[in-house]
Amino acid sequence: MAESARYPLRVAYHETDAMGVVHHSNHIKYFEEARVDFLRNKNLMSQHHPDGPLVFAVVELWTKYFKTARFDEELEVWTQARLNGLRIEFQYALFSRRTKTFIAQGTTQLIALGADLKPKRLPTEFTDAFASEGWDEVWPPKI
Amino acid sequence: MAESARYPLRVAYHETDAMGVVHHSNHIKYFEEARVDFLRNKNLMSQHHPDGPLVFAVVELWTKYFKTARFDEELEVWTQARLNGLRIEFQYALFSRRTKTFIAQGTTQLIALGADLKPKRLPTEFTDAFASEGWDEVWPPKI
Amino acid sequence: MAESARYPLRVAYHETDAMGVVHHSNHIKYFEEARVDFLRNKNLMSQHHPDGPLVFAVVELWTKYFKTARFDEELEVWTQARLNGLRIEFQYALFSRRTKTFIAQGTTQLIALGADLKPKRLPTEFTDAFASEGWDEVWPPKI
Amino acid sequence: MAESARYPLRVAYHETDAMGVVHHSNHIKYFEEARVDFLRNKNLMSQHHPDGPLVFAVVELWTKYFKTARFDEELEVWTQARLNGLRIEFQYALFSRRTKTFIAQGTTQLIALGADLKPKRLPTEFTDAFASEGWDEVWPPKI
Repeated sequence: MAESARYPLRVAYHETDAMGVVHHSNHIKYFEEARVDFLRNKNLMSQHHPDGPLVFAVVELWTKYFKTARFDEELEVWTQARLNGLRIEFQYALFSRRTKTFIAQGTTQLIALGADLKPKRLPTEFTDAFASEGWDEVWPPKI
Repeated sequence: MAESARYPLRVAYHETDAMGVVHHSNHIKYFEEARVDFLRNKNLMSQHHPDGPLVFAVVELWTKYFKTARFDEELEVWTQARLNGLRIEFQYALFSRRTKTFIAQGTTQLIALGADLKPKRLPTEFTDAFASEGWDEVWPPKI
Repeated sequence: MAESARYPLRVAYHETDAMGVVHHSNHIKYFEEARVDFLRNKNLMSQHHPDGPLVFAVVELWTKYFKTARFDEELEVWTQARLNGLRIEFQYALFSRRTKTFIAQGTTQLIALGADLKPKRLPTEFTDAFASEGWDEVWPPKI
Repeated sequence: MAESARYPLRVAYHETDAMGVVHHSNHIKYFEEARVDFLRNKNLMSQHHPDGPLVFAVVELWTKYFKTARFDEELEVWTQARLNGLRIEFQYALFSRRTKTFIAQGTTQLIALGADLKPKRLPTEFTDAFASEGWDEVWPPKI
């Protein structure tokens, strides 16, 4: 897996809840940040911008939580992606640098929308960029 | 379905994103608010409080997004719940009062944790309260 | 003070932090929700909508925190507003129904922007609506 | 000003609102992240941790917004701090790498609380670390 597909972050205080751990809604935000980083590393961000021709809408998401993460803990989001018809499927695994284990995993399905919020075909930049992309059937990957 | 299982809300400006619609991470927060409201209506909140003997951790969630919602739009979260071994399964459907349609659905699986963050059996208040609870196999419900 | 200027809310679990209390950034969101509610009660929301001719930008804010609030606590945002040249000044006091005391106060200064994000004069609906509005020099008000 | 006092960040999609820009509540989160980073660079984080002897509560904040920031824009939070009796005063300036200008500024006043949420004296690690800290009377600094 390419190094570019690991997005590092640190748990902010405002992301914790009264249980003393990251609130489960913030994993969704971490996945989004990793997804944007993934597209940026493939030079696909000009397509993603609000001023660009397309926006990407999440149409489905799934998350499984194994372990908690605490304030200031260093995490990484490992990401892989593939095309599936009109959809882009992203798969995430949230890794703790402290415990060296995965603490959560998730998927999101996205579609491209035009300015009219109607579904659009993915541009060839996308299909080309994803054509050579690997996909790990075992997820989270063995470490 | 009991009226108590419909949690009303209005889309706040801070919940919208640059696409002009509710950001998909906020649905997770809406579901949580509806879940707390559901437990409050069953007098189960004394169990849920940070000062109480148990906390509830989301171990899995799934969401499907059909349509967008805009600033100030009036929504309802329709909720049903059932016990599944040590887990509580909540099912949600997000209804728009404007369009009279469901715009998203989701599920969360929760487990009860003690102060040591170890899984605990659900107290009898819970199992009793859920014993008589209905469950709609067709979800979102027909309207 | 008119009853319409009291916006009720309940602290959501996702608004708490590892200290077990509402994170200080959420007060800013509470104030925004109260501000929108205040404008809605004056029938000024058609002006505020993203599809409307104007948006309102916060250009300055100030908050003072006296006491904490916990999960599920019932609060009220008391709000007053006045025009100040091109600005609308809102003043907020956050009241706890549990302790019957104010736990925070704040102000925001807003200006109206056109679709080009340039400052605009306030429409006469605004100046008329605010002309008869009272203003309490002592704030938070005596209770 | 030391390089360590510049905290870099990138605007996340989930931080934008329907106006297409960073929502004003997120500046408060950016300031918090910069404050934590500032303390980390001074090796004062062991004091700050939820498991540590102290927590730090924001008792007052003020923010002024000059310009907007858009999705994916690269920003820096410039930070300075000084002790003021029992309080720590932080001052922030939010810099856009795109426009090479400051787009917002702010201050927060913090106090240290013990596990009983009562105010405590700052430990000598703090007073020592801040004794040699510079303070720029002109803020945001000239660039």
